[in-house]
Amino acid sequence: MIEHPAYPVDPWCLRETSLDLDVLAESESLFALSNGHIGWRGNLDEGEPYGLPGTYLNGVYETRPLPYAEAGYGFPEAGETVINLTNGKLIRLLVDDQAFDIRSGELRSHERRLDFRTGLLERHAEWVGQGGHGVSVRSSRLVSLVQRSVAAISYEVEPLDGAVRVVIQSELVANESLPGEGGDPRVAAVLEEPLCSEAHAASATGASLSHSTRTSGLRLATAMDHRIDGPPSVRVTTESFPDIGRVTVTAALEPGERLRIVKFVAYGWSGERSESAVRDQVAAALVAATQAGWEGLATQQRAYLDDFWERSDVEVDGDPEIQQAARFSLFHILQAGARAEGSAIPAKGLTGPGYDGHTFWDTETFVLAVLTYTAPEAAAQALRWRHSTLPLARARATQLGLEGAVFPWRTIAGAECSGYWPAGTAAFHIGADIAAAVVRYIEVTGDEEFEKSEGLELLTETARMWRSLGHHDAHGKFRIDGVTGPDEYSAVADNNIYTNLMAQENLARAAECAQRYPDITRRLGIDGEETSAWLDAATAMFVPYDDFLRIHPQSEGFTSHDVWDFAATTPEQYPLLLHFPYFDLYRKQVVKQADLVLAMHLRGDAFTAEEKSRNFSYYEALTVRDSSLSASTQAVMAAEVGHLGLAHDYLAETALMDLGDLEHNTRDGLHVAALAGTWIALVAGLGGLRERTGSLHFAPRLPEGITRLAIALSVRQRRLRVTITPDHTEYLLREGDPMQIVHDGEELRVSTADVVRRPTRRPAPTEEPTQPSGREPRRARGG
Amino acid sequence: MIEHPAYPVDPWCLRETSLDLDVLAESESLFALSNGHIGWRGNLDEGEPYGLPGTYLNGVYETRPLPYAEAGYGFPEAGETVINLTNGKLIRLLVDDQAFDIRSGELRSHERRLDFRTGLLERHAEWVGQGGHGVSVRSSRLVSLVQRSVAAISYEVEPLDGAVRVVIQSELVANESLPGEGGDPRVAAVLEEPLCSEAHAASATGASLSHSTRTSGLRLATAMDHRIDGPPSVRVTTESFPDIGRVTVTAALEPGERLRIVKFVAYGWSGERSESAVRDQVAAALVAATQAGWEGLATQQRAYLDDFWERSDVEVDGDPEIQQAARFSLFHILQAGARAEGSAIPAKGLTGPGYDGHTFWDTETFVLAVLTYTAPEAAAQALRWRHSTLPLARARATQLGLEGAVFPWRTIAGAECSGYWPAGTAAFHIGADIAAAVVRYIEVTGDEEFEKSEGLELLTETARMWRSLGHHDAHGKFRIDGVTGPDEYSAVADNNIYTNLMAQENLARAAECAQRYPDITRRLGIDGEETSAWLDAATAMFVPYDDFLRIHPQSEGFTSHDVWDFAATTPEQYPLLLHFPYFDLYRKQVVKQADLVLAMHLRGDAFTAEEKSRNFSYYEALTVRDSSLSASTQAVMAAEVGHLGLAHDYLAETALMDLGDLEHNTRDGLHVAALAGTWIALVAGLGGLRERTGSLHFAPRLPEGITRLAIALSVRQRRLRVTITPDHTEYLLREGDPMQIVHDGEELRVSTADVVRRPTRRPAPTEEPTQPSGREPRRARGG
Repeated sequence: MIEHPAYPVDPWCLRETSLDLDVLAESESLFALSNGHIGWRGNLDEGEPYGLPGTYLNGVYETRPLPYAEAGYGFPEAGETVINLTNGKLIRLLVDDQAFDIRSGELRSHERRLDFRTGLLERHAEWVGQGGHGVSVRSSRLVSLVQRSVAAISYEVEPLDGAVRVVIQSELVANESLPGEGGDPRVAAVLEEPLCSEAHAASATGASLSHSTRTSGLRLATAMDHRIDGPPSVRVTTESFPDIGRVTVTAALEPGERLRIVKFVAYGWSGERSESAVRDQVAAALVAATQAGWEGLATQQRAYLDDFWERSDVEVDGDPEIQQAARFSLFHILQAGARAEGSAIPAKGLTGPGYDGHTFWDTETFVLAVLTYTAPEAAAQALRWRHSTLPLARARATQLGLEGAVFPWRTIAGAECSGYWPAGTAAFHIGADIAAAVVRYIEVTGDEEFEKSEGLELLTETARMWRSLGHHDAHGKFRIDGVTGPDEYSAVADNNIYTNLMAQENLARAAECAQRYPDITRRLGIDGEETSAWLDAATAMFVPYDDFLRIHPQSEGFTSHDVWDFAATTPEQYPLLLHFPYFDLYRKQVVKQADLVLAMHLRGDAFTAEEKSRNFSYYEALTVRDSSLSASTQAVMAAEVGHLGLAHDYLAETALMDLGDLEHNTRDGLHVAALAGTWIALVAGLGGLRERTGSLHFAPRLPEGITRLAIALSVRQRRLRVTITPDHTEYLLREGDPMQIVHDGEELRVSTADVVRRPTRRPAPTEEPTQPSGREPRRARGG
Repeated sequence: MIEHPAYPVDPWCLRETSLDLDVLAESESLFALSNGHIGWRGNLDEGEPYGLPGTYLNGVYETRPLPYAEAGYGFPEAGETVINLTNGKLIRLLVDDQAFDIRSGELRSHERRLDFRTGLLERHAEWVGQGGHGVSVRSSRLVSLVQRSVAAISYEVEPLDGAVRVVIQSELVANESLPGEGGDPRVAAVLEEPLCSEAHAASATGASLSHSTRTSGLRLATAMDHRIDGPPSVRVTTESFPDIGRVTVTAALEPGERLRIVKFVAYGWSGERSESAVRDQVAAALVAATQAGWEGLATQQRAYLDDFWERSDVEVDGDPEIQQAARFSLFHILQAGARAEGSAIPAKGLTGPGYDGHTFWDTETFVLAVLTYTAPEAAAQALRWRHSTLPLARARATQLGLEGAVFPWRTIAGAECSGYWPAGTAAFHIGADIAAAVVRYIEVTGDEEFEKSEGLELLTETARMWRSLGHHDAHGKFRIDGVTGPDEYSAVADNNIYTNLMAQENLARAAECAQRYPDITRRLGIDGEETSAWLDAATAMFVPYDDFLRIHPQSEGFTSHDVWDFAATTPEQYPLLLHFPYFDLYRKQVVKQADLVLAMHLRGDAFTAEEKSRNFSYYEALTVRDSSLSASTQAVMAAEVGHLGLAHDYLAETALMDLGDLEHNTRDGLHVAALAGTWIALVAGLGGLRERTGSLHFAPRLPEGITRLAIALSVRQRRLRVTITPDHTEYLLREGDPMQIVHDGEELRVSTADVVRRPTRRPAPTEEPTQPSGREPRRARGG
């Protein structure tokens, strides 16, 4: 955990008041800037020291071999992995010939601040070199949410006391050396110098580099230009090499004088276009950036974010840590998805190289659940990206002997990159997760264009997959055997309830949607036989039940398995997967992450309230949360079944996953789905929000300690505001025509005219469930 | 399949009447010589052309990395792989300066003959070089079954017509270049030049080479000497290099003159001793060989084999192909195991590099089933080798969180070398297979010394493993969840019946044996609590049953799975594992190899006759026999349930697995367990032999076409002869005290005094089972 007293709680920013090199890499993830297209980790301007240098362009990857000790049919032979691209953040400073480096000289003060409203990462340092002369350095950095290809830095140096000679080297650097990766030497070979120079050039105040990747054959260009403002002594020279572009600015600064440079950086890439086309596109973006200027870019950024917060803010009174975390989460989710346009939203966003830069099911299930209500256009773009990978998903289905489309468990560009199929390809639920995200997006936005152009096709191809994956048994039940559900401590089991219920919904919604659009249906080759087969399968879907325990087994037979020996498991043995073999985890009752409990959230209609309560308690005692994806779902269901204190604790855990570095890997990038879990725990958990066909349901309840929760949502061209206090919940439309919503089972009409107010329900106290010993929620909050 | 009219059927040898380069590699496996310690593939004397050069020493391996695209706890990081060692077979010949090479010049005749009674591989070629002068070349080769470290070659050249100058180069060659391996470049790097020279020397008529392996750190020495007999013109020179020892013999041969050299080769290796110790041991073996001389070695070999056939021959009248195959099988099984002493019996014996030279469960289950009755000392040695690996197996158990010992799925020296755990480590049944081989060996031989020194400890450590692997469920049943049975088209399933029944026997026999030896029991730390827990688990062992189908499901839930779509599967799509993903095979009813059917053979007491019949038919329709281990078991159970024609067909399939190259991989080495299956199909199938505590049971029956089957068995210091004709079966002891046996349920006393004669039962005709379309038994026999 980051034990970092230097991050004071603040509702609208993340502030670091001193620099701790031990957690530098974590801070680079927390302070990462991105617009979903460009990702800049929060590396120091001068490049060193670093935890992990990181510059990413969404969709740019290198291909690497996936080796197997014993290979098998259909095992992917090559994977896609994110690579560190041309670093445009670099601004080195020399003061009286001494390199500004916080490890040498005297660092009098150092503060960084990521402002969720301005979108700027600001830094201020006062530093005295070994020669005794000091400088004040102020930088401010943005990755534009408006001009998608552009990032910029404002960088100012002033003498602290005496006159100094300063040299600023503002650079583009390709093929930076990275900390050792260990592991497979062939993989290291791929990633060591991933970029091949294609061209380089220098201009009066700028430079540009063009590169291509060795195996994946992608082409990228980076260009920079500068506005320089300083005393008359300022001189500028530029130069370029295959992997370096450099603008050197020298000046003699008297006390009171200041040297300021604004660095504009533009990025572009393509898998198809020529070097000159990509280079020109980048040059155009750069000109647009310089014309806007730093102030113009910053003003656009603020306006973009003002609008976002206006539409999407969540106010949490009574728990300032959760308030900060909620906004930190929303800010980073927006950064991950805002301008991804045509690319995936990776599990780490563009904040680090974790998970090889891959996207998984949790983008659809967690991240899009938030974006659909807060930045619906970004949700649509993410689903359009999935749609664009249909050719690969269809080919994968064919390879696996299935109909329709099999989406990859992990990927950058759409090919299956999972090298361990029991916890990869066998997790077919990703198909239903995508379908559910489609259904939710259409339900919440009413975007009929999307439904017709991409939605129905995604529902169709996933429904086809389910129909061919399952079969009707001798008793007519539709079974889906040998698949893996969300819980990665079970694998390749029969009739995983999460999978079966999600597939059921997928099949039913596909049939329903197909019946609404006969024209498109014809184009997609769907006939009445096919939709009937989907509906038959949905109707006959097998959902196992343990009559003896009166519990839903996560999968068929699960509750007959031995229960994990939690008493004999020591704290150091978590996460279990690093200390126990898969075979043993798979054959015992131990749950890595919510699975049946997630089914109860997303398919709540399939369970009675009593079943939910009994199941929740049963699985609480088995769930170790070795995945960051678990706490938010447990928060949601704890709230639904009435354990509000527990819900609050799980909310805190998901909210502080990265701010508290609870899984000790924030250095590799943020857990974007866990960040999304913060919003989900607040809105679906405490707010009780559920989507049902045709309307939104709320069932608000507040734990002690949260005195007010106000949620802004975008729903069907309307802006809805829900304000929950322990006593009452108020609904108000801020914009749009009146609409129906459901509060605790009661239909309400909400409009812009009047606040509708209803009592907030307080659940009756029931017996608290218990967790495995030592696996109680990590209440990492100060309070 | 080898379509090879040049292998005429002969009851006592395998003869090849002309050379077909297309099947050269297969012939090298069929003609391989071995004594279980040294293995020489049947490569041509002159080294080229070759299919696959092969010289092996049992237990000599190199370590290679086992890579994973996604690694996991407990995945083995390094494997052991057999390597091609110093080739001592090589005798090159030059005739009038032209290299004797069957691809150039005119090959007038070429015959090879492997004689099962003499143990010699003989060759005769008449060849005329491009210069027009011809030679007759006769060679005879043996790997001594008596002098374990020794192999020898008698090599003779005579002019066919005119005088010729001949040069013979008799060599030792290390690090021979091999045909490309493809695959992982790191693995290729390990195997390319596996041997590092440590010393080399030449003597008057010999040479020696010492090498060590790079990573596994084993040391080996090879030495050769020669006896040379020819006209006065003979001259001899010798030389040595790090990887070559060479003795060059020149002579001018007039018509009627003959040059004969006898080459003696000795091998030794050690993981511990010094270079000089290993070298001296080899020198000693070489002196002993030269003192015996060729004739001495050949006489010893014949005597050894005469004794073997006298004790172990199986006579099959009416089907000469099966007769030949039965003896071919017995000969190769003997070669694989005779002198393995301290090493494993690999799945390919020492006939080729297939399966990396690993040994699997089928050595205990199939090969030792034969050796126990035919060469019991070799069976004991093989089990002693297992016992010697207990420290590694205990460490593996600890790593996996289990008690006792977990034996490796595949190994050379005892470490787990399986890089795919669902079909490797999860196949825990190997523990029970070893225990069953121990029980069988003790039962059949009465070897109490073995029982006390190794047997009980093996039973104990495997029983401990089962007790910790399974658990009593809420209803008291003992369940073994998440394991893989013999059928590799299912994996990681609950309560595989084969596994559960074999574990049951393992637990019960361990308890029973422990109770017989209180002293040893104390030393092994077994108390009454522990044996009671074993017996409780055995008594409560869960054996699932499908009441609806009235069938035993192979594993819990198996019969609910979809049946494989055999109708849509084309002949080219077999073996299925090369054309369909594991996930799909695992989740459907399709059986690679006998699993439940093997349980019915080895635990026949757990099934009623009617259950056997119903189960057999059910699984016949699902079993595709993509494994060479299936046909023999199907033959046994087909015979038991009364389908004698089918039993005959499966017998033929297993018998001709390598002679007919039915699986197209005989080139990589023989299928030793399938060869053993020939004997099992004859003796346990047609003879109906089953071991039961305290006595042997026979239930003889003959299919049409086999007119007489005579079986010689070694049982408890006795030699039993069983002669079956369609009408009667006769039992006679050839040696030893009278004993009880059971014939068709009737107890009989057999002795050396009189033949006991009983009627041979003819089963009533019942409905023939069917196989998946196109997977009927391959009746590859001529008749």
